[in-house]
Amino acid sequence: MRHTLALAARGRGFVEPNPMVGAVVLDTSGQLVGEGWHQKFGGPHAEVFALAAAGDRARGGTLVVTLEPCCHHGKTPPCTDAVLKAGIARVVVAMADPFPKVAGGGISILREAGKDVHVGLCEPDALALNAPYLKLIRTGRPWVHAKWAMTLDGKIATRTGDSKWISGEESRRRVHELRGRLDAIIVGRGTVVADDPLLTARPAGARVATRVVISASGDLPERCHLRTTAREAPVIVYTLDANAPKFRGWAADGAEIVAFPDAMTLDAVLADLGRRRFTNVLVEGGAGLLGSVFDERVADEFHVFIAPKVIGGTGAPVPIAGLGAAQMAEGLALQGVTFAPSGADVYVHGFARGM
Amino acid sequence: MRHTLALAARGRGFVEPNPMVGAVVLDTSGQLVGEGWHQKFGGPHAEVFALAAAGDRARGGTLVVTLEPCCHHGKTPPCTDAVLKAGIARVVVAMADPFPKVAGGGISILREAGKDVHVGLCEPDALALNAPYLKLIRTGRPWVHAKWAMTLDGKIATRTGDSKWISGEESRRRVHELRGRLDAIIVGRGTVVADDPLLTARPAGARVATRVVISASGDLPERCHLRTTAREAPVIVYTLDANAPKFRGWAADGAEIVAFPDAMTLDAVLADLGRRRFTNVLVEGGAGLLGSVFDERVADEFHVFIAPKVIGGTGAPVPIAGLGAAQMAEGLALQGVTFAPSGADVYVHGFARGM
Ligand SMILES: NC(=O)c1ccc[n+]([C@@H]2O[C@H](COP(=O)([O-])OP(=O)(O)OC[C@H]3O[C@@H](n4cnc5c(N)ncnc54)[C@H](OP(=O)(O)O)[C@@H]3O)[C@@H](O)[C@H]2O)c1
Ligand SMILES: NC(=O)c1ccc[n+]([C@@H]2O[C@H](COP(=O)([O-])OP(=O)(O)OC[C@H]3O[C@@H](n4cnc5c(N)ncnc54)[C@H](OP(=O)(O)O)[C@@H]3O)[C@@H](O)[C@H]2O)c1
Repeated sequence: MRHTLALAARGRGFVEPNPMVGAVVLDTSGQLVGEGWHQKFGGPHAEVFALAAAGDRARGGTLVVTLEPCCHHGKTPPCTDAVLKAGIARVVVAMADPFPKVAGGGISILREAGKDVHVGLCEPDALALNAPYLKLIRTGRPWVHAKWAMTLDGKIATRTGDSKWISGEESRRRVHELRGRLDAIIVGRGTVVADDPLLTARPAGARVATRVVISASGDLPERCHLRTTAREAPVIVYTLDANAPKFRGWAADGAEIVAFPDAMTLDAVLADLGRRRFTNVLVEGGAGLLGSVFDERVADEFHVFIAPKVIGGTGAPVPIAGLGAAQMAEGLALQGVTFAPSGADVYVHGFARGM
Repeated sequence: MRHTLALAARGRGFVEPNPMVGAVVLDTSGQLVGEGWHQKFGGPHAEVFALAAAGDRARGGTLVVTLEPCCHHGKTPPCTDAVLKAGIARVVVAMADPFPKVAGGGISILREAGKDVHVGLCEPDALALNAPYLKLIRTGRPWVHAKWAMTLDGKIATRTGDSKWISGEESRRRVHELRGRLDAIIVGRGTVVADDPLLTARPAGARVATRVVISASGDLPERCHLRTTAREAPVIVYTLDANAPKFRGWAADGAEIVAFPDAMTLDAVLADLGRRRFTNVLVEGGAGLLGSVFDERVADEFHVFIAPKVIGGTGAPVPIAGLGAAQMAEGLALQGVTFAPSGADVYVHGFARGM
């Protein structure tokens, strides 16, 4: 199953909003005779690849699969059909699929057909692998990654605002890699004004992220990279009043303007992104937006790059503003924390909750 | 020589303001027949231990030593005498000793006595090992360690000032270990007011550090731990006006008050600590003092503990205040950076200059 989970992970960035799935077929003697993974949204499922590779050797054998096989006609025919047709005798599944059209149905069909079905092998790893998929199904909100880069004294720019560069090349490469596998890159108005960023993945990754700007006021610059490239990669602006005249140019240039006329919360923004079936979104800053993200506790996963530089300065900006915790005990203690070198920087990675 | 340097390092914390020194004796066949290190300030030198252990087997052999043998009567007789008496034929030295009473004299004496003397093996490592000793001799200032502990979002306390605890037990243990081998622990007035710290090493280390408070104004609390324990471990207050009535109580309780009537700079403070032959001092904060330390570029070595916690808050205090760098290029890029787990925290260690 560990190997099968590793196969599944190869689909990361390519399959969303589908789950990552891996499958392996063992023949009657226990030999691995076929393997596969879900490679691409809309493409064949993992089981289909593995069974095809195994061919006749699947008969009487075991299918090991990281997620309950589907039992509905979606973009592809039900995998349960393929499993039955291949003559598989035993199915080992890491976790049931909470997707409403499956939700245990695949397991029932296989059991009713007399197959020996075992569910729950390496389940925690399978749950962790597809945590973003599961969150989207459960809550209708995408998995939120928060990223910042700061110096060893916790600054994101000098007192004059200079921030080129905080982190090194390798860390910037990693950020672009992350952008290339996610559904949206979100920034606050302040970052658009200060940095005029492009927010694309360079080089391009598995998917093209939608670039999202959050701005209650909507006071965005008339000219900026996001607006001029809105037809090359999607741009959405979340704001209070979508009909404000200032948005006419943005809309004409291809940006989508979404309004929350009464009150704007991050949760409402995330719900809208979830309706688009965005599975993973990345909040890249600035401090104001990350402050909201922290205060509303909407982040799931953290990527922090710390450069071994000291810049000092009472007035130098910090990565997270907002209200903040009053007591240490109200802070967020990350779970599953790892750190690794990233060029000269340290890359700290962790989760808001245990996985 | 690497082994000999490792022997030398065993004296760390015990020998200062002397250098750490290690020595090894090889007999005529190249076998290790004696080793030793300078163990304690005022105690016998490394060569004496190594030669004593080797006894007669030293005759015709080689002495490997990390620092030029001394040639003067200090707290102990000259090591050159012992080397000659032992009948050593060859001496391999990592680095010359810049100490004014030695400064090449030991090497000359040995060469004049017909010994084969080689200087410079692993010299960079020997220079790094004794960088604090060398700095004190060269500049009259102690080696300055700067330490802070912060969250993953670069805060040293919540917006309400709660900081118990930022870092975990293991990190606090490491700080106490550091305190236990240094000559002074320095804080600013703000830290005394806010935290009323004791600044002792618990458990006690190789030496008892002098506790130093830097306060131009001298507006210190009337009651605080530093003052009430000033007879248990030394306390020095650096200020502008030592004769201010507010210091009478402090002086009566055993604290030493040192004034700079005209202007107070960190360099003047360090020069005074250097006159006391303090080799290593630790600046523990707070942000104001570390800001001066950064702005005046007086730190040599950095110890930063980063806890994987997020607390947010526009107003939450940061580790380094002061003026700060205007441009990224004016920041301090640490050299020789390493990072390691420290309980749940990350411990980042580096130097202001290449070593
Ligand atoms: N080192 C890094 O990793 C990094 C990354 C990105 C940016 N930065 C730096 O961060 C700085 C910008 O930070 P910043 O704090 O000024 O700007 P910001 O966080 O990018 O933008 C703040 C603005 O975003 C909007 N916003 C945030 N939360 C909101 C919410 N919950 N609802 C509605 N609107 C919300 C508000 O816009 P309205 O005012 O329109 O309401 C707010 O003024 C720049 O200097 C940039 O260089 C650094
Ligand atoms: N997380 C950590 O690692 C850590 C460690 C220590 C402290 N802290 C926190 O830091 C906070 C205190 O920080 P802070 O910035 O208020 O205080 P601070 O840095 O301890 O003290 C600032 C004061 O030190 C004096 N000072 C600093 N530099 C000077 C210089 N070059 N010449 C003369 N005097 C100088 C000044 O005293 P005068 O006003 O008398 O002139 C100044 O007001 C506390 O909340 C504490 O909890 C955190």
